[in-house]
Amino acid sequence: MRTRPLKVALLGCGVVGSEVARIMTTHADDLAARIGAPVELAGIAVRRPNRVRAGVPAELLTTDATALVKRGDIDVVVEVIGGVEPARSLITTSFEHGASVVSANKALLAADGAALHAAAVEHGVDLYYEAAVAGAIPLIRPLRESLAGDKVNRVLGIVNGTTNFILDKMDTTGAGYSEALDEATALGYAEADPTADVEGFDAAAKAAILAGIAFHTRVTIDDVHREGITEVTAADIASARRMGCTVKLLAICERSADGRSVTARVHPAMIPLTHPLASVREAYNAVFVEAAAAGQLMFYGPGAGGSPTASAVLGDLVATCRNKLASTTGPGESAYAQLTVSPMDDVVTRYHISLDVADKPGVLAQVATVFAEHQVSIDTVRQQGRNPAADGVAVEQGGGGRREGGEASLVVVTHRAPDAALGATVEALRKLDTVRGVASIMRVEGE
Amino acid sequence: MRTRPLKVALLGCGVVGSEVARIMTTHADDLAARIGAPVELAGIAVRRPNRVRAGVPAELLTTDATALVKRGDIDVVVEVIGGVEPARSLITTSFEHGASVVSANKALLAADGAALHAAAVEHGVDLYYEAAVAGAIPLIRPLRESLAGDKVNRVLGIVNGTTNFILDKMDTTGAGYSEALDEATALGYAEADPTADVEGFDAAAKAAILAGIAFHTRVTIDDVHREGITEVTAADIASARRMGCTVKLLAICERSADGRSVTARVHPAMIPLTHPLASVREAYNAVFVEAAAAGQLMFYGPGAGGSPTASAVLGDLVATCRNKLASTTGPGESAYAQLTVSPMDDVVTRYHISLDVADKPGVLAQVATVFAEHQVSIDTVRQQGRNPAADGVAVEQGGGGRREGGEASLVVVTHRAPDAALGATVEALRKLDTVRGVASIMRVEGE
Repeated sequence: MRTRPLKVALLGCGVVGSEVARIMTTHADDLAARIGAPVELAGIAVRRPNRVRAGVPAELLTTDATALVKRGDIDVVVEVIGGVEPARSLITTSFEHGASVVSANKALLAADGAALHAAAVEHGVDLYYEAAVAGAIPLIRPLRESLAGDKVNRVLGIVNGTTNFILDKMDTTGAGYSEALDEATALGYAEADPTADVEGFDAAAKAAILAGIAFHTRVTIDDVHREGITEVTAADIASARRMGCTVKLLAICERSADGRSVTARVHPAMIPLTHPLASVREAYNAVFVEAAAAGQLMFYGPGAGGSPTASAVLGDLVATCRNKLASTTGPGESAYAQLTVSPMDDVVTRYHISLDVADKPGVLAQVATVFAEHQVSIDTVRQQGRNPAADGVAVEQGGGGRREGGEASLVVVTHRAPDAALGATVEALRKLDTVRGVASIMRVEGE
Repeated sequence: MRTRPLKVALLGCGVVGSEVARIMTTHADDLAARIGAPVELAGIAVRRPNRVRAGVPAELLTTDATALVKRGDIDVVVEVIGGVEPARSLITTSFEHGASVVSANKALLAADGAALHAAAVEHGVDLYYEAAVAGAIPLIRPLRESLAGDKVNRVLGIVNGTTNFILDKMDTTGAGYSEALDEATALGYAEADPTADVEGFDAAAKAAILAGIAFHTRVTIDDVHREGITEVTAADIASARRMGCTVKLLAICERSADGRSVTARVHPAMIPLTHPLASVREAYNAVFVEAAAAGQLMFYGPGAGGSPTASAVLGDLVATCRNKLASTTGPGESAYAQLTVSPMDDVVTRYHISLDVADKPGVLAQVATVFAEHQVSIDTVRQQGRNPAADGVAVEQGGGGRREGGEASLVVVTHRAPDAALGATVEALRKLDTVRGVASIMRVEGE
């Protein structure tokens, strides 16, 4: 074993960074044995050097991240700052000074992965980022390496723990969105500003990264259709239950039937309770990968948190250090396929639509006609009280569902159709005199 | 991209080999793009060259495997023959002639992995074998690389599809072992001679491989405690149901509490229906990995079959070809930890014991005394009719459970204790006059 240590610079020392520093210290011997040389933490760039960080050597702290990565003796830079800048400049500077980079930065990679990969290649160094998607769950490496001889057709998963916690709470307790968000915030599952999570930005970044690797095609977050969970109501969840479903925020990356284009999207969807993703509870993540030869694989585990994310970072650190010792680099970007990334309109899916309608004869016929005009085939229709929570009664089609005031509810579940046709159907339904309002629209997946 | 192709020799052209050959032909462009050079199937060694193999170029077939790997122009040898010889000699000869090897051979690797790894290192080539464990499910690479910076404490999984199919049938239909085996054979899930599967040899080989990688310690199949499923009865499964459990054949590799030793074992065990492994149906495989930082991860997918295994082989083929092009090798054996592999006696687990006892006062006291004498603490005791399938009634402790003929059944579930103590307890119970027989013993896991 080489005795001269490999030098590591750590950028950021928050929840993840401090855990990386801790494990590098406490497990130094194991890491050395697995790498073939000792690794030394050479410096830690932080914004607030006076903050107490248990187990983190204070003498290594610096506020000058740029100077740290420019030192010239750094072999690997671990970037756990997050956000686009200054992370991007620091990573680029690291490459220029010969350092490989291990990053957990999903936002940056989803925005600008191609340029970063190109810069790494230019300087003959590695860019690894297993920690950017689904915490400790090995996903990047299995997709990039284990399935390198296969054809991935679909990646479907729960990749954001915060929203899964919120939806799980809503499902198990009947709570509304705000109440569940409050609980998530109180327990530390949601940040003070939860926008990135609840509006689906975090999941969309991960979807872009996964789609790019799975389909050997460049996909950025701008290519990803994104809807968050802020409009999911207790009534939606109750409605899902009546269908034998639950509601999850899914990231779905799919190859089209003809194989020439792909789509990537993040939105809440109903999935059957019998689907393995339905039983993913609290802040856990799980991702299904469907490949032509492998069939259906699932990867499950903690999708966030200091320790799990540090585990992924350290796995990449060992790999990049080994590559450094062997004077080689690992597999980088693979975007040769250059498939078209199609918009949401082209996605083929199913809708669950809840309508408030006038309670008079002929309404169902009118509604059904609109679906037919848009070539959208109806799977089931159910009439029910508009506010099931109030009267507790769901009346099947053909029965009553009639309420004083002359209103009823119609719940329509469609067969699979292009999202554009489904969207146009809903627009046309809104224009019907007999349709008082569209109470909710949700896609149905996982069947 | 390099235009001169990398040459691949395929040893064996059965269910897996023919699928490897087919995908190498139909997906040649994708493989070339991902590797950075075309790959050419240079020869296929088979025993019966006249057998029809759809999609396999007949001109590549040869019966002389040794001559094929000795050609001198082969970059990678794919070994899907199975068994110890001639596979071992062919792999060694391949190394000697400069070829990396991709193997699906769990028996050989579990028996002699260390020597093969040493030979690969000696000749500066790769030995990869993702396909040897759990078919298409990425496990070797995640354990060896993704978790390289973490400390794995436990690997627990269903790694044999045949036995899972049989136990699943027994559980869902109430069938006995023989009947379920017959169905598995008829459907092609079990081989004509099912010994390797049903006696646990296949799972034990996989446990040895997983334990070795997880704990950075040499573990061979001889270190693995092994019990098959041939003695699992419909009554055992029914008994498990009454406990809210099902029966699975588990491979369990554990680090001891003090961290200094490990154990590896394969045996049928009861696991709670709420455990994710309980819902692994038919011939699927699933493996839990518990690591210090990552927490609990699960990997799920098809554990066998031509296409899934070919997917794993081809992933390794891409990796070894990339390494060849870069004149490097990937991570090999890591056995630096040299932990003691402890025998089954040292495993701490729980027993579910079903006893046929005389129906007279004081029996429970006698039985409880034997447990106490062996320092085994009892969790629950239940008296019931000896053959619940016949009378359909399970009577709780303190109630009847009495039958004509003066016999009753006692079901005891213990707390966790060393396997040696549990085994000694059962031996002592057998010697009691009031114990007519020990109807079944099964470990309880996953809690």
